[in-house]
Amino acid sequence: MSDHSASNGKLPGLLRPALSRNVALLLESRIPARLSWVGLHGAPRIVPIWFVWTGDQLVMATFAGAAKLAELYEGALAAASIDTESFPYRSLRMGGHLSLTSLDGLADEYRAAAARYLGESAGRTWCRSLEGRPQVVLRLTPTWASASDMSRSPFLAEHG
Amino acid sequence: MSDHSASNGKLPGLLRPALSRNVALLLESRIPARLSWVGLHGAPRIVPIWFVWTGDQLVMATFAGAAKLAELYEGALAAASIDTESFPYRSLRMGGHLSLTSLDGLADEYRAAAARYLGESAGRTWCRSLEGRPQVVLRLTPTWASASDMSRSPFLAEHG
Repeated sequence: MSDHSASNGKLPGLLRPALSRNVALLLESRIPARLSWVGLHGAPRIVPIWFVWTGDQLVMATFAGAAKLAELYEGALAAASIDTESFPYRSLRMGGHLSLTSLDGLADEYRAAAARYLGESAGRTWCRSLEGRPQVVLRLTPTWASASDMSRSPFLAEHG
Repeated sequence: MSDHSASNGKLPGLLRPALSRNVALLLESRIPARLSWVGLHGAPRIVPIWFVWTGDQLVMATFAGAAKLAELYEGALAAASIDTESFPYRSLRMGGHLSLTSLDGLADEYRAAAARYLGESAGRTWCRSLEGRPQVVLRLTPTWASASDMSRSPFLAEHG
């Protein structure tokens, strides 16, 4: 259920292949990640954001000038939750350090995310409307992860 | 769209009646809040959690002994997002200070949340299975809030 391994560049066990069905489904889902970080003056922040999972990083993208970029920096700590909104809940959470890369236009990972979240055709239309806008790629390298799947809980087996 | 009012005990404008349709629907929805705070060693934390909105506080409950209680304290800063997982996205975010109250059993707000999220009957069954377990109520008094509704964006009017 849980793997809080030390941060030594090693991927947490539950994010290593072969992924559990629960983790794989969440990473392939159209559920936005909810990303949190610590903002100015120590205040917690949270935003829903598209992601793609590369096999070892959770990759997100934002547009140059976004307010969050005033608070995110190379090496900043972040945590993300990818979880279902309907009962019985399934969830995957992970945390680690962010790395940021500025681009002249849209990130490949953003195009991939748009295709997954919106479908191939609508994703292309979406990206076309944003073509040329500079993005900043946010790469979260997880040092810990935890997952849960309430559909496998003994409670539901008894009461479900 | 956005109201980052100063923290002076006054409810942010967009959480004051009459609520916009977007904000009202999110506060009445079965979407769990995603709650974030700053954990030990300054690491950002995030969990999905049931909530009820009382009109001026976002009220959540956790069980005594939950790991998060080692990191939450009276006056701790927290932020919450209540947002849809399907496009076009609608979201409500708010942040402020937490107050914590320990109880001998289930919180009334937790019973109300269970009824909303699971339905009246399943909510009662759920709570019956947890009867007598001590809870800690988390009350978030928002000092800022922001909302967005992509279904009202000019982009979708053009392309949708």
